[in-house]
Amino acid sequence: MKKKELKIVLDTNMFVNPDSRYFFGKTPKESFNNFLELISKKTNITCYMPPSIYEELTKFIGQTNISKKSVLINKKPPSIYELSIPSLMFYEFIEEFRLRINKGLRVAEKFTRRALRSENEEEIIKSLREEYRIALREGIIDSSQDCDLLLLSKELKAYLATSDKGLIKWSHKLGINCITAQELKTLVE
Amino acid sequence: MKKKELKIVLDTNMFVNPDSRYFFGKTPKESFNNFLELISKKTNITCYMPPSIYEELTKFIGQTNISKKSVLINKKPPSIYELSIPSLMFYEFIEEFRLRINKGLRVAEKFTRRALRSENEEEIIKSLREEYRIALREGIIDSSQDCDLLLLSKELKAYLATSDKGLIKWSHKLGINCITAQELKTLVE
Repeated sequence: MKKKELKIVLDTNMFVNPDSRYFFGKTPKESFNNFLELISKKTNITCYMPPSIYEELTKFIGQTNISKKSVLINKKPPSIYELSIPSLMFYEFIEEFRLRINKGLRVAEKFTRRALRSENEEEIIKSLREEYRIALREGIIDSSQDCDLLLLSKELKAYLATSDKGLIKWSHKLGINCITAQELKTLVE
Repeated sequence: MKKKELKIVLDTNMFVNPDSRYFFGKTPKESFNNFLELISKKTNITCYMPPSIYEELTKFIGQTNISKKSVLINKKPPSIYELSIPSLMFYEFIEEFRLRINKGLRVAEKFTRRALRSENEEEIIKSLREEYRIALREGIIDSSQDCDLLLLSKELKAYLATSDKGLIKWSHKLGINCITAQELKTLVE
């Protein structure tokens, strides 16, 4: 019996985040190259990375440190001029965006007030950045790279291998099956 | 010859913003009721307001101050569970969102730094709110009301009567014809 064809879209975090890359190797370089080695032996799995994601990964690991087997990764971008998404998703995104904007302002006000009573500029700006980032960016799609992963997975009806909470949340709205690093390892072994 | 049927989706700002309502009346109440009077005489024009927008307007003017002819306004919501939008639009929106987040952080940092050297809390928080609002909300779709107007105009292939810069910008991406208060007046007279 012919094995079922599997398509998997890969997020950078699989090979970069310590919790995920651990399944494939110690460093990002080792982790990605080991992964390429594993998929070179599989005939029923095609792995994809949109160009923006592949670029992010090569910048992180260093082009020269990546095995030639990286050619096995299909660098297809999503067909963003052809695809469509449900209006409801856009609608929900706008509502989320609005909530985040308000949260961000509360954070900005809090730190401005704190600064009126403090003198430690460096520390206060550092904490502001951290809290602001969490308020506005955690659990939401906030980059074209995220968008590429989401839309490509949708287009290909592929699994999406990611540990990003925002991507997982919005993938589920689009009916995309997200897999963890551990599940990815089981599939490619 | 039968006159061409016209569908117009109306934004609150037509009857609320001084620059727009001026074409129909002095106050929001007068402006909206005069407008209802005008359209009651037109047989080839149907005006729409999504429920969220109509609610916004009635809150502003006061339910009891609105003429019974408001029944002439079709309060249809967009079919957000059925419609879809091009992926490209979502993609562009995420990119815009990212830019706005970064802008918002710059504003927050600026005011936190300013607060370290100041004592006028009230004034500094007021300016922060104003600058933050402009950075994050001007020229973008940032509410479910905006979304309702955009999607309903798209669904009905209607004109959208609005003076909101963000709505006009994103309407143009979806092929929606936006009209000004002056154009709206010419059409209903």
